[in-house]
Amino acid sequence: MSDEFSLIERHLRRPAGRSDVLLAGGDDAALVAVPADSLLVVTTDMLVAGVHFEAEAPAAAVGHKALAVNLSDLAAMGAAPAWVSLALTLPAPAPEDWLADFAEGFYALADAAGVALIGGDLTQGPLSLCVQALGLLPAAAGALRREGANVGDLVCVTGTLGDAALALACSLGGAKTPADADAAFLQQRLQQPWPRLGAGVALRPLASAGIDVSDGLIADLGHICRASGVGAIIEQAQLPLSAAARATAGAAGLDVLEAALYGGDDYELCVTVPPAALAAAQRAVAASEFLGLTPIGRIVAEPGIRLQAADGGLHAPRPQVGYRHFG
Amino acid sequence: MSDEFSLIERHLRRPAGRSDVLLAGGDDAALVAVPADSLLVVTTDMLVAGVHFEAEAPAAAVGHKALAVNLSDLAAMGAAPAWVSLALTLPAPAPEDWLADFAEGFYALADAAGVALIGGDLTQGPLSLCVQALGLLPAAAGALRREGANVGDLVCVTGTLGDAALALACSLGGAKTPADADAAFLQQRLQQPWPRLGAGVALRPLASAGIDVSDGLIADLGHICRASGVGAIIEQAQLPLSAAARATAGAAGLDVLEAALYGGDDYELCVTVPPAALAAAQRAVAASEFLGLTPIGRIVAEPGIRLQAADGGLHAPRPQVGYRHFG
Repeated sequence: MSDEFSLIERHLRRPAGRSDVLLAGGDDAALVAVPADSLLVVTTDMLVAGVHFEAEAPAAAVGHKALAVNLSDLAAMGAAPAWVSLALTLPAPAPEDWLADFAEGFYALADAAGVALIGGDLTQGPLSLCVQALGLLPAAAGALRREGANVGDLVCVTGTLGDAALALACSLGGAKTPADADAAFLQQRLQQPWPRLGAGVALRPLASAGIDVSDGLIADLGHICRASGVGAIIEQAQLPLSAAARATAGAAGLDVLEAALYGGDDYELCVTVPPAALAAAQRAVAASEFLGLTPIGRIVAEPGIRLQAADGGLHAPRPQVGYRHFG
Repeated sequence: MSDEFSLIERHLRRPAGRSDVLLAGGDDAALVAVPADSLLVVTTDMLVAGVHFEAEAPAAAVGHKALAVNLSDLAAMGAAPAWVSLALTLPAPAPEDWLADFAEGFYALADAAGVALIGGDLTQGPLSLCVQALGLLPAAAGALRREGANVGDLVCVTGTLGDAALALACSLGGAKTPADADAAFLQQRLQQPWPRLGAGVALRPLASAGIDVSDGLIADLGHICRASGVGAIIEQAQLPLSAAARATAGAAGLDVLEAALYGGDDYELCVTVPPAALAAAQRAVAASEFLGLTPIGRIVAEPGIRLQAADGGLHAPRPQVGYRHFG
């Protein structure tokens, strides 16, 4: 677009705030210094309006979420975030108010996470965003991988599950309106997920495997199981549920367990932990983020995931590939 | 999309071919080792169908170009390319033939450039692509920046200018069809630009400033001039033109100088070089890429760019912001 440079200048360029950024913006590429004792962790995610977020969603929330989903991937590796670049495609004429709000949401999270925006691209077309996040990992430590889960390990998740899916179900109009405070909590969980960066770093030396829950617990735990060549049994009664999720599901006639098992977009971490390390892992997560780490099941040799009901009976999850709709 | 994982597996995942790639694909992020004596160079570019390429363009050419424009940014910094990630948004149902051809074009250039695809994202929506390229630069050396041009330096460009713009003008139907061989040459220049990586590395220690010519010579040289606080005089008679460009412009009644001055998408490098270093720079570029490096003007103190005609008269370029249309 004709005023690409001035739009970037006005809304997206801010001081980097990190001494390892040698050059950010205004040249053909950015230049950063990677500490000699660190490995570089690289992830990218594209978000498309109408697919990953509603075109009418508040721009600040879109800015937050575009960054959050990428930082969540770094958290799932146990990496500390360092630098991000952003490619933004905006419809013409450039919606300048939207861009200003977007930048606010983006930078609020970037500043909180200690991440510097080092460059990007602004182009014209259907609204979409692509963020690339770069993180650092001590070279001496291993990353928190999807492979590595061992038979006997406990399956644990941070925070609560199903909140984002319930927010989506309610905002889609398929359910009665929940109480205001609950609705606000669930909407925030959907629109402004907080990447579990501190938990990821804290869990790296203690967990045997990890992933972030973006497509739903069953789908994402399935990735751990396949990568590790194991299976898992999940105790449904142990799934951590927020009070807002319980109340909303109850009032709206939705199945809160469905949301917790198959709902996506919570961006909590799912890790496997040797039983002897559970207490230390819970302490480390609590100390890093005032966050709960709940054991919800165990790794078994038999492939696949089974659900254990309160009466002890085992059954298979329903077949699905990631979360699409529920309720 | 439901078969995102299998599509990635079938078409995009190949062995990394670099020993510094510790983990690529199949986890939440990729993991690479940055040499201790190197700085990291980061760039990203989004390409949108209908804006940056025709939706009907051959998929292999789109794959080539998406990577080429990013590698060209690394070349303009004098960096050696190392790793790339790719986020791809495809309309549903996923056009699998298109994706296979795209991957061929992408990997042909990646392999030639010694770059490893280390991860990415495949999502559903309007056809677009976002590539992030990571390059390396010796920490002891400076990057080839836009700032740094000094009064008296020569302005030089690699290769030839205006080819891509003429190809676009002809393919838009605004001109008579050129001879087949010329048309093929110009189309290849437009659809499959070759990033001047060898030239960038070779010029880094010799040039005072550099940029890649993506928006047109006048627009991009303008960035150098503003960043360096200088101006430039370009001798029109010195602009390097391909035989195909001359013949095509002549046959089609197009202005070849217009194409060379204002046409975008050539992805040549424009650098400023102290006169004493010109011969060494020309030898270095020729040795690295069998490519010409042509002096086309000089840096002056007076801000702005002026054009010098064959009779010595100076005039201002026409006002413009990047290349849009011409002819």
